Amino acid sequence: MEYWSIYLTYIGVVMSAPFHPPRFSERIDRLRPSLVREILAAATRPGMISFAGGLPAADLIPPLPVEALGDPALYQYGATEGEAAFAEAVARWIGETGLAVTPAQILPLAGSQQGLDLAAKLLIDAGTPMLTESPTYLAALNVFKLFGADIAGIPLGADGPDLAAFERLLKLRRPACVYLVPTFQNPAGACYGPDARRRVAELLDEHGTLLIEDDPYRTLALDVDHAATPICALLERAPWIHLGSFSKILWPGLRIGYLAAREDLMPMLVRLKQSVDLHTQRPGQAIVAHWLASPERDAHIERLRAGYRLRRDAMQTTLTRHFGDIADWRAPSGGLFFWLRLRRHEARRDLLECAMARGVAFLPGEAFFPDGTDRQHMRLNYSHATPEQMEQGLDCLADLILGRA
Amino acid sequence: MEYWSIYLTYIGVVMSAPFHPPRFSERIDRLRPSLVREILAAATRPGMISFAGGLPAADLIPPLPVEALGDPALYQYGATEGEAAFAEAVARWIGETGLAVTPAQILPLAGSQQGLDLAAKLLIDAGTPMLTESPTYLAALNVFKLFGADIAGIPLGADGPDLAAFERLLKLRRPACVYLVPTFQNPAGACYGPDARRRVAELLDEHGTLLIEDDPYRTLALDVDHAATPICALLERAPWIHLGSFSKILWPGLRIGYLAAREDLMPMLVRLKQSVDLHTQRPGQAIVAHWLASPERDAHIERLRAGYRLRRDAMQTTLTRHFGDIADWRAPSGGLFFWLRLRRHEARRDLLECAMARGVAFLPGEAFFPDGTDRQHMRLNYSHATPEQMEQGLDCLADLILGRA
Repeated sequence: MEYWSIYLTYIGVVMSAPFHPPRFSERIDRLRPSLVREILAAATRPGMISFAGGLPAADLIPPLPVEALGDPALYQYGATEGEAAFAEAVARWIGETGLAVTPAQILPLAGSQQGLDLAAKLLIDAGTPMLTESPTYLAALNVFKLFGADIAGIPLGADGPDLAAFERLLKLRRPACVYLVPTFQNPAGACYGPDARRRVAELLDEHGTLLIEDDPYRTLALDVDHAATPICALLERAPWIHLGSFSKILWPGLRIGYLAAREDLMPMLVRLKQSVDLHTQRPGQAIVAHWLASPERDAHIERLRAGYRLRRDAMQTTLTRHFGDIADWRAPSGGLFFWLRLRRHEARRDLLECAMARGVAFLPGEAFFPDGTDRQHMRLNYSHATPEQMEQGLDCLADLILGRA
Repeated sequence: MEYWSIYLTYIGVVMSAPFHPPRFSERIDRLRPSLVREILAAATRPGMISFAGGLPAADLIPPLPVEALGDPALYQYGATEGEAAFAEAVARWIGETGLAVTPAQILPLAGSQQGLDLAAKLLIDAGTPMLTESPTYLAALNVFKLFGADIAGIPLGADGPDLAAFERLLKLRRPACVYLVPTFQNPAGACYGPDARRRVAELLDEHGTLLIEDDPYRTLALDVDHAATPICALLERAPWIHLGSFSKILWPGLRIGYLAAREDLMPMLVRLKQSVDLHTQRPGQAIVAHWLASPERDAHIERLRAGYRLRRDAMQTTLTRHFGDIADWRAPSGGLFFWLRLRRHEARRDLLECAMARGVAFLPGEAFFPDGTDRQHMRLNYSHATPEQMEQGLDCLADLILGRA
């Protein structure tokens, strides 16, 4: 191309660009491409068989107790610290797990995801070292990376983290905080045993490292033979933030979760929450507080567990039929996911694209690893698909992996 | 004190400190002390006469249309982009102001405050230059300062900003963005005239500077003789984010607001929103969409305006009686606040403390100025106190200012 032609093209581009481009902050360079968002969006298309998201089973979501919405005060602005009835009910609810907290240690959130944003604001500057499990919850990785965290991964086994690696990383990296999902871990399904919990707490105490314990799946315990005491309850000196959700057992669309934290962290967390959205919606807090105090609460939880056990077992049976020869996994004892490790094949993006084209969605493992290099794993949700969809979808996936399709 | 005694004290402190202190991020140093939070919290104490907050009048908050909550799909996880019915209704609602947007340019928020957090995430690094009006909305100042913005203030007159100063600051500081509240400004009550709006838009276009236009009070127009077209609608080339709220006209406790933005900003804003809380609660979106489409909508707005006019006029009358000789102000033509400039006295913290001790709360001007140096102004809300409380509270405040109490 001649120079004058390049010049004219340049002029043409300038003349045809009616908009000034925005000047973004540096963190926008760290805003990850939205592969997962795209998968999850596509997974809601009619006819799609989705193992991708973490949607609770729609038929196990109870009707909304609108009788809890009568107090007109709920519609006025409220306090950032939340409704007294909510904070008291949640403090009791957490207390049942073995973590003793006062209502003043509870902050209602627009879902526990918001707790990740607040924790990152509290703790993370660009370059701040932190640890997560490897693999870990992908949306937590995205939040911490957005704030510039320098993340190292603790290898995860079936009953908890590699404790020697954990100790080494604490000494070597001196992290500002550690993010863990010890109870029905997302994506790997691991539930830390009592010894691992105790040892993790000791190491955190020894190093004075703050723990962010994300605990959204606790209530979806299907079969677990120990109390799964929150690690926050075992800490004696290290600071901690505990995140909880009602989205897995009640109404995800309502966006109600909470954090509990060591007392000295609460003033900062409350101010950060106020600057984000003033306070969590009050009608939603009232509805959840009403449910927590209702006599049907425990029966509802038992129905949920029974329903999820059936679905999990159906997935296990169907998976064994189609993936028994090509992958290894353990049926999860709680939570919403199967985590498969392919023996000889790779779960790459092109597999995902083929599957999506055939109407089947799953999440490839790479999104869950801090270093993003995994090619062996797949996360499969078991709570959303019907038994017929499970059969059809897993058959299709196995065919694609084996090159039979 | 002897050395050994100091040493023993030191040992004692170390031994008695059971907790490891947390390591906060740098931004926590910029988290402002919560004077205003404390005032607002104290202002809700029973018996307190509060001119401090921006609470809508409780008797003008309509009952919740629970009939909009019937669709079970509202209780499952939803899309970050929001409910189609909400986005469409809000796009039409904004369109009525003169700002033409598509539903894809709407993002539902947990109140418009959340838009400030998202805009700061999108645009502000530590040291990023930006402009705001001086005075401006204090919670916006807090968010932008938390992210490290280097804020310069544009002096504000009765009909808009000092345009010469604005132009000078655009050239001198090359700000990444400008935050304005052009319609019933908080705290000053100013409503930019048509010429000021046009000139501000021209200057932003000329410099390619992004505008964050915060517009929560627009519907509470009491008497204004022009269309108050959003400045975003007048921009031809500069990028823009427009923030809107339903908290001043419907149910503040529900926490539903929105942003609209130039198309090219939406993908980033949607991803940032997703990382913050996945999506805005769906039942709240359904309720607001239902109200926006209801045939009673405009009659409700007229009732609101009539109710607020009565309250504003009562405040004006009572203020004139008690403050006529000691302060200057203009009765606001919309929004929720009177902004008083004391002639010879100061509105210092000790005045506030005396007033609070006597059961009367207001906000001193200093919190609203980027440089925090003001001692002359007071912001007084007129929508919350009853006529009897207005009389009693303003009498008390004037007495304190004049040293008669």
